[in-house]
Amino acid sequence: MPQIPVAVLGATGSVGQRFVSLLEGHPWFKVIALAASDRSVGQKYSQAMRWILNEPMPDYAKDMVVVPATVEAAQARIVFSALHSEIAKELEPQFAKAGMAVCSNASSFRQAADVPLLLPEVNADHIQLVKTQRTNRSWSGCIVTNPNCTSAGLTVALKALNDAFGVKKVFAVSLQALSGAGYPGVSSMDILDNVIPNINGEEEKVELEPRKMLGKLNENKIEFADIKFSAHTNRVAVLDGHTVCASVEFATLPPDVQSVLQTLSAYQASAGADELPSSPRPVIHVREEADRPQPRLDRLTGKGMSTVVGRVREDPLFHIKFVVLSHNTIRGAAGGSIYNAELLVNEGLL
Amino acid sequence: MPQIPVAVLGATGSVGQRFVSLLEGHPWFKVIALAASDRSVGQKYSQAMRWILNEPMPDYAKDMVVVPATVEAAQARIVFSALHSEIAKELEPQFAKAGMAVCSNASSFRQAADVPLLLPEVNADHIQLVKTQRTNRSWSGCIVTNPNCTSAGLTVALKALNDAFGVKKVFAVSLQALSGAGYPGVSSMDILDNVIPNINGEEEKVELEPRKMLGKLNENKIEFADIKFSAHTNRVAVLDGHTVCASVEFATLPPDVQSVLQTLSAYQASAGADELPSSPRPVIHVREEADRPQPRLDRLTGKGMSTVVGRVREDPLFHIKFVVLSHNTIRGAAGGSIYNAELLVNEGLL
Amino acid sequence: MPQIPVAVLGATGSVGQRFVSLLEGHPWFKVIALAASDRSVGQKYSQAMRWILNEPMPDYAKDMVVVPATVEAAQARIVFSALHSEIAKELEPQFAKAGMAVCSNASSFRQAADVPLLLPEVNADHIQLVKTQRTNRSWSGCIVTNPNCTSAGLTVALKALNDAFGVKKVFAVSLQALSGAGYPGVSSMDILDNVIPNINGEEEKVELEPRKMLGKLNENKIEFADIKFSAHTNRVAVLDGHTVCASVEFATLPPDVQSVLQTLSAYQASAGADELPSSPRPVIHVREEADRPQPRLDRLTGKGMSTVVGRVREDPLFHIKFVVLSHNTIRGAAGGSIYNAELLVNEGLL
Amino acid sequence: MPQIPVAVLGATGSVGQRFVSLLEGHPWFKVIALAASDRSVGQKYSQAMRWILNEPMPDYAKDMVVVPATVEAAQARIVFSALHSEIAKELEPQFAKAGMAVCSNASSFRQAADVPLLLPEVNADHIQLVKTQRTNRSWSGCIVTNPNCTSAGLTVALKALNDAFGVKKVFAVSLQALSGAGYPGVSSMDILDNVIPNINGEEEKVELEPRKMLGKLNENKIEFADIKFSAHTNRVAVLDGHTVCASVEFATLPPDVQSVLQTLSAYQASAGADELPSSPRPVIHVREEADRPQPRLDRLTGKGMSTVVGRVREDPLFHIKFVVLSHNTIRGAAGGSIYNAELLVNEGLL
Repeated sequence: MPQIPVAVLGATGSVGQRFVSLLEGHPWFKVIALAASDRSVGQKYSQAMRWILNEPMPDYAKDMVVVPATVEAAQARIVFSALHSEIAKELEPQFAKAGMAVCSNASSFRQAADVPLLLPEVNADHIQLVKTQRTNRSWSGCIVTNPNCTSAGLTVALKALNDAFGVKKVFAVSLQALSGAGYPGVSSMDILDNVIPNINGEEEKVELEPRKMLGKLNENKIEFADIKFSAHTNRVAVLDGHTVCASVEFATLPPDVQSVLQTLSAYQASAGADELPSSPRPVIHVREEADRPQPRLDRLTGKGMSTVVGRVREDPLFHIKFVVLSHNTIRGAAGGSIYNAELLVNEGLL
Repeated sequence: MPQIPVAVLGATGSVGQRFVSLLEGHPWFKVIALAASDRSVGQKYSQAMRWILNEPMPDYAKDMVVVPATVEAAQARIVFSALHSEIAKELEPQFAKAGMAVCSNASSFRQAADVPLLLPEVNADHIQLVKTQRTNRSWSGCIVTNPNCTSAGLTVALKALNDAFGVKKVFAVSLQALSGAGYPGVSSMDILDNVIPNINGEEEKVELEPRKMLGKLNENKIEFADIKFSAHTNRVAVLDGHTVCASVEFATLPPDVQSVLQTLSAYQASAGADELPSSPRPVIHVREEADRPQPRLDRLTGKGMSTVVGRVREDPLFHIKFVVLSHNTIRGAAGGSIYNAELLVNEGLL
Repeated sequence: MPQIPVAVLGATGSVGQRFVSLLEGHPWFKVIALAASDRSVGQKYSQAMRWILNEPMPDYAKDMVVVPATVEAAQARIVFSALHSEIAKELEPQFAKAGMAVCSNASSFRQAADVPLLLPEVNADHIQLVKTQRTNRSWSGCIVTNPNCTSAGLTVALKALNDAFGVKKVFAVSLQALSGAGYPGVSSMDILDNVIPNINGEEEKVELEPRKMLGKLNENKIEFADIKFSAHTNRVAVLDGHTVCASVEFATLPPDVQSVLQTLSAYQASAGADELPSSPRPVIHVREEADRPQPRLDRLTGKGMSTVVGRVREDPLFHIKFVVLSHNTIRGAAGGSIYNAELLVNEGLL
Repeated sequence: MPQIPVAVLGATGSVGQRFVSLLEGHPWFKVIALAASDRSVGQKYSQAMRWILNEPMPDYAKDMVVVPATVEAAQARIVFSALHSEIAKELEPQFAKAGMAVCSNASSFRQAADVPLLLPEVNADHIQLVKTQRTNRSWSGCIVTNPNCTSAGLTVALKALNDAFGVKKVFAVSLQALSGAGYPGVSSMDILDNVIPNINGEEEKVELEPRKMLGKLNENKIEFADIKFSAHTNRVAVLDGHTVCASVEFATLPPDVQSVLQTLSAYQASAGADELPSSPRPVIHVREEADRPQPRLDRLTGKGMSTVVGRVREDPLFHIKFVVLSHNTIRGAAGGSIYNAELLVNEGLL
């Protein structure tokens, strides 16, 4: 397969760096442009920012000169967007109109009726919505989005359970990593020996986004899943990896713990989404130890693309409670966008 | 008032140190014995262990020689117990039989039918149960317990709400401090850049203990409150202060946020429990900022005895959600036991 | 004594907050103005910033309206400056010219020949330099400075040793707290599970400032002490309290460890500097445990004004090595400025 | 090359786990026995302990049954020892006597006159000492040791400088990672928001071990290098990676910064030590940014085997100062022992 040229918008930030890292040696994609704000334009990528990942900066990126985030400067077939949502709202449609496929991590268009909000291992079929989008908006390109980082792992686990048993209510409390706030993000003075029990706008997203992804595509429209959510979101002193404590009430006769474990372990992505370069292997890794998953030890399961579930047990109020862990800047951000782009290619929708 | 002689059992551990610190300069109590395990017996207190509190070791304690935790060696009117529960189970009855009032932080007798489980600002009247206890067990002393550290703050907040509106269901997720695990307790390798999503036996306690404290004393028996709980408990990288995310369903017409705020702020301990040396002032401190309470900033509110509540808002699944913070080794352990002892004295039950 | 009106410039930052906190209930000083940058002007102090200290914001400050940092708006007898050095360079002379005594934590004038760089327990006599300053500059007010936070504790320990034995060379490596970088200061992504082995401009200050403070005031000039310094400065994940590892070579026959311990313990501030409200008690607290001082446990010794020294032992290369700890925003910043102001008042130099 | 059977003694501890991890897929070595204390014997390795590395436990080890650390139970050609030093002192000679090559991370024999203390990129020629050792002790096997984790990186940097310019005095202050203390090791209560300015016995090792490694093998004896060291050792809240601040005085005309940078970058291991499977690539990675090396970002340079040096600058007291970083459980422990074993094989000394 010939390599498809791609660009990264917002390439110097926390998620942008993750894109640059994950795209190194990608079998289908070749990075031809790194775009960022005026402050960085014209500089070599290696000098345009502070690299914050444990993994070293890939060689391919070091000498690339940062370009502006404009349609002219960042020409490519696929554009990965790590832009802030206000900027994304304005710029992403320009790229889509100019014929590029925008795979976006921004929240701006996640709830637009004709924009797919995708986790390919959950709702690969929703990608067909780009056809409607193209018709509606007269775009030759398109916008495809991935969910916010806290929703990602939770939704994967819920998908397996909803298919098998029907989920009705979900209580979710997150303990979120610092990288989710970008860089410099959270001040060290605010988080050392501390917890911040609030992340602006996050609870609303966790209460809404899974419902779209678990919904059904019906005649060019997504019918949201009829599941009620309540979320509390917290920031804790962890670098990467969001932990979510979840309690679930089922619509029907509640399953026993053993059935839940089997259902989660056995869950597979649908054909077409299961053998892409970024497909999680396994989709869900179930741990049975009493004290797992833990972010430091489990976040890189399946190269950071797997969802890790543990502590499955009965819930005295609802039916089942468990803990979900997911890597927030890989499965929950850059890795998710890349997986979306692979699905677009595979479905011939590029 | 003449000073009442008191002893501390388990004086070298994390909670024992907190007892020693809080009893410095107490207007009613005078520490006459510090007891610990064989390893420490015979040594000066200042050399028997590693002092881990931010506050310096009180002068009165430094040269006291550690004695064994026996009835003979630790004679006093009141005995504060920071013993491990297996040991407490065996030793505390010996002290009670010998005529001493045991104010215990151990879990061993919390669920015994004739032992009060006390938060004086919540259920001061339950202290009358010691009369039944004395009759039942032919003890001239008694055992009075305080709840586990995570239940403490949560129960205070629920008491105010239950009195006003009737609480039916509670979902609670904790982010607990390291000092709750004692010393050396949690390995640094386990918690730096990490979360541990489990604390052995804790969830069961949080699901049960508040029901006893919110219950009614009826003819020498506690009728447990008819409230259902579901708890997830987590350890995070915080030194002191347990944070609990709670969602509450009410029995009747749900109150609006403003009424909840007023109810919490206005809550008072009953007469007799409200003007003791350790009475929290205020009982509940309500914060209205979007990101409070935070353990580092708020744990010392009211000298660590107040319960701090914030982020009161509507819950899409239940009715109201909020965040509770309480200092786990002060209000949730040593400070709570001392407050219980003050109540015993005040009620003439010593 | 009637209360002296004081103002705080830069009152909303990390050091500014410490000034506001330490001035609560001060026996001599009464805060009449809190000044900050345009962003905060006109707001109530309690709403103008994020309060980051463990201690709650003092009541007196909450409703004060923030004023601009101008001579007109911040009229007082004494002005405490927590301004950034570039701004201090411009503004502080205006206040001094207008007749106010500026006690500054900024570095701008520390090395000016006619500006005292003061630690009252070290070089109280240098305060006489303000007379020269007033003559030179035709100011009715004056500027008095305190050293950078890392130099403070180190210089106190060196003063005691230099007086007794003559110090010739000092090797110093710091492990500095986050609060030294202000707020938001260091990103949590940069310091969790990490060390930053550099603090801009800090090594130069540590190699120079102690030499001025340990110098002699001779006919209106400071002769710098003839001591050579080498410094490495590091940032570590500690909230407050700078730790410095020091090795010292003496000019004469090197003292033994026991003499060093005695000399440090016995050190006193000179008359006039030893009984002020902020005088450290003791000046130096010597610890003999193998693993002290530690920032979390020892930074509040003497209300954060004492210098804590431990691990005094022979050095195989120089003569003696030890560890010094000092609270960076109290003894090393706001507390130091207030102590300087007290000395000014006491010497009749206001 | 046929695979050489190896065993790991002390396989369940912090360093033992690192051996198990690094030996996965080793081109020359095949793990046939994992030995540990009685508590673990008879259990599957995967259930015998808490795995603490970020990298998942290798599959090959999971089902291996832990054996006792005896000559009979842990038969192999090479034995890697992660034993505590008191136990190592007794057991390692038994293995050497039984014909096995013991590559040890324990300190017990590092200073024995006929035992090589090895960093192959520094003093590969010292390995010839095993011949003397075999003669002296009538062993068919041997013991070869690697230095303590703090000395490792420092000695590599000093070797390059000593060869080029002659080193005379070294001042070294460490900021050491938690994994160096094993597991559970340092209590979280001791290190969160804190520094521990002491590591038992460490300073003596740092002041002595480099002198042996930088010494000359002369007629079956090591002449220690004539370099004087002074060390301060500190524990900080970092998971892996020891940072050392070093100041160096040279014997001759001091080199300028540029020459030091070139010398460090150009340094190569001697032939025979430079192309082994674990040879660091590069031996020294020089960073020129103002704030590097940092443990989180740089510890995995060269798969954790490279020494990273940065902040090379003039020293006002000695000649040159710089910062060295080295991964303490890879280059400074398990990786170092494996590299030593590879050298033994390559030199035909097995």
